[in-house]
Amino acid sequence: MPGWSTLAGMISGPWGKVMQDLLTPLITGDRRALSRAITLVESTRADHRQMAQDLIAGLPDRQALRIGLSGTPGVGKSTFIEAFGTKLTEQGLNVAVLAVDPSSTRSGGSILGDKTRMETLARNPRAFIRPSPSNTHLGGVARRTREAIRLCEAAGYDIVIIETVGVGQSETLVADMSDLFILLLAPAGGDELQGVKRGIMEMADLILVNKADGDLLSPATRTVADYAGALRLLRKRPQDPEGFPKALPVSATTGAGLDAAWSQMLHLAGWRRDHGHLDRNRAEQARQWFWSELRGGLLAKLDRPNVKARVDTLGQKVAQGDLPPARAAQDILDWLDDHRE
Amino acid sequence: MPGWSTLAGMISGPWGKVMQDLLTPLITGDRRALSRAITLVESTRADHRQMAQDLIAGLPDRQALRIGLSGTPGVGKSTFIEAFGTKLTEQGLNVAVLAVDPSSTRSGGSILGDKTRMETLARNPRAFIRPSPSNTHLGGVARRTREAIRLCEAAGYDIVIIETVGVGQSETLVADMSDLFILLLAPAGGDELQGVKRGIMEMADLILVNKADGDLLSPATRTVADYAGALRLLRKRPQDPEGFPKALPVSATTGAGLDAAWSQMLHLAGWRRDHGHLDRNRAEQARQWFWSELRGGLLAKLDRPNVKARVDTLGQKVAQGDLPPARAAQDILDWLDDHRE
Repeated sequence: MPGWSTLAGMISGPWGKVMQDLLTPLITGDRRALSRAITLVESTRADHRQMAQDLIAGLPDRQALRIGLSGTPGVGKSTFIEAFGTKLTEQGLNVAVLAVDPSSTRSGGSILGDKTRMETLARNPRAFIRPSPSNTHLGGVARRTREAIRLCEAAGYDIVIIETVGVGQSETLVADMSDLFILLLAPAGGDELQGVKRGIMEMADLILVNKADGDLLSPATRTVADYAGALRLLRKRPQDPEGFPKALPVSATTGAGLDAAWSQMLHLAGWRRDHGHLDRNRAEQARQWFWSELRGGLLAKLDRPNVKARVDTLGQKVAQGDLPPARAAQDILDWLDDHRE
Repeated sequence: MPGWSTLAGMISGPWGKVMQDLLTPLITGDRRALSRAITLVESTRADHRQMAQDLIAGLPDRQALRIGLSGTPGVGKSTFIEAFGTKLTEQGLNVAVLAVDPSSTRSGGSILGDKTRMETLARNPRAFIRPSPSNTHLGGVARRTREAIRLCEAAGYDIVIIETVGVGQSETLVADMSDLFILLLAPAGGDELQGVKRGIMEMADLILVNKADGDLLSPATRTVADYAGALRLLRKRPQDPEGFPKALPVSATTGAGLDAAWSQMLHLAGWRRDHGHLDRNRAEQARQWFWSELRGGLLAKLDRPNVKARVDTLGQKVAQGDLPPARAAQDILDWLDDHRE
């Protein structure tokens, strides 16, 4: 994992100095400091977790607009972020892109991969791109991403785009940490709705049908109408102004529709802010995060090697019918109470 | 809750005597002892849990065929169990029926309700019917039902039917504690498949289409063909003989098809037993149960009133943005380590 050697060097220094070495450049927008800080929050080592918590607690209270973006592979997500992100930077906005991909088994090469697929944006001084950590389970990705968002905000980014591949539970996870949730879809052949799950549709604030250009312009337009119809069947949400959720056509290649999409996002975010929904939503998200950290922290006790060994032994006896499951569980729970760390 | 006063009286006696007072009549098939024992495993009081675990650990190793049965309200589930259960008792088999209904908010009256809806079976000396405990969450119902199954087996029942209303996660729960899982469905109008979720279909070993009599005979036959077609599209499971999972017509009212259904269940269970799948499946279920008890036991720490109060206070600060979620969670986790019970 890149950045580790540098970080390890910093960690060996005195505590207060380490914090200042990281925090001061971070809040003045130093991208390397931001990178290092994210590497720190990605670590699961106990002392790093402690440092990460101290760092997060010391961050200034800056807020960015958090945009969740989901789209299946092939829909043109990278091209969209590249075009959309570049447009935002041209308006003087600083844009951070965080990837959430719990299935990622990519090694160090991923950084190159992610930066290559958004080449222009990666070179843009107003943009910061960070790939998903590799080999991390969903819970770990969730924690890292929530904390990375806070770090990007503290570093002065105005927009944080949290992108995810539309598989499994990652959409829910991203929607739960975003102010706006955008679904990027491809034009569908005919009137089929691409098997988008109802639950995912219900989370979307905006459905963008990409590739609305050339030969696909007319299918894309039809697809937008289909989704618009499907969205009208959903119950209107109290946190939405009239007409939302909405479906719009865009083309990441020609740039068509990007301005309209951005103006709709601003309209929705502004309305929610003015009506207090944005703050209420963030308060609720923070509370959920707290609970998930709490549950995760308790269950992490079972991951300690000495506990794992004990669980395996008793699990074997349980499977053989030599020990009732509830009794075996109680044995582990009692043992945990007597052997704290 | 009925039985409590009797149980309370027993609990005040000396420990060994209590166990013998409950265990000895239980394993000789005394139904009142079985009822009391189930009431004991339904209790969440710490001393009762301890007794329940001791009792379970002391049970002889008898096994029944565990049949999970799911069907939505109106499909004729009670009538089916009544007819099917009676048929089994006529073959000299002892039949226990346990209901799993996590949504149940019924009070003491439920016993009467469940016994009324299976009036004939309730009066049958070879049958034992126990309704779902009221006001218990899914996890509690799961534990109670798993332990109640063991009690029924020890009491000499040959067949344990675990029935559930087909809502939410209760089907998965019941399938996870059964040797065979049966889906009872009504004849569908036309060729629609009643919106049965693919995941539920995949759990079913046998789909029984009820009400195959009178005017509904022909729709029922068509529905059986439809389900048979749908089942053929599913991947064959290694633990199944040729031709399974299967769809069959039955009529709980006329009794038509019940013999055929029972013979298919015996064929499947026999094949699985002979190929070792039954034992492997039970070993895996026991291991899962162990893990779920373990996770449940850890998370139960958060339910203690003094912890709850602390969690509420910190949760409030988190929602107001005064405390980072991970820091708040760590605070609770540290506090739990220092304040054990």
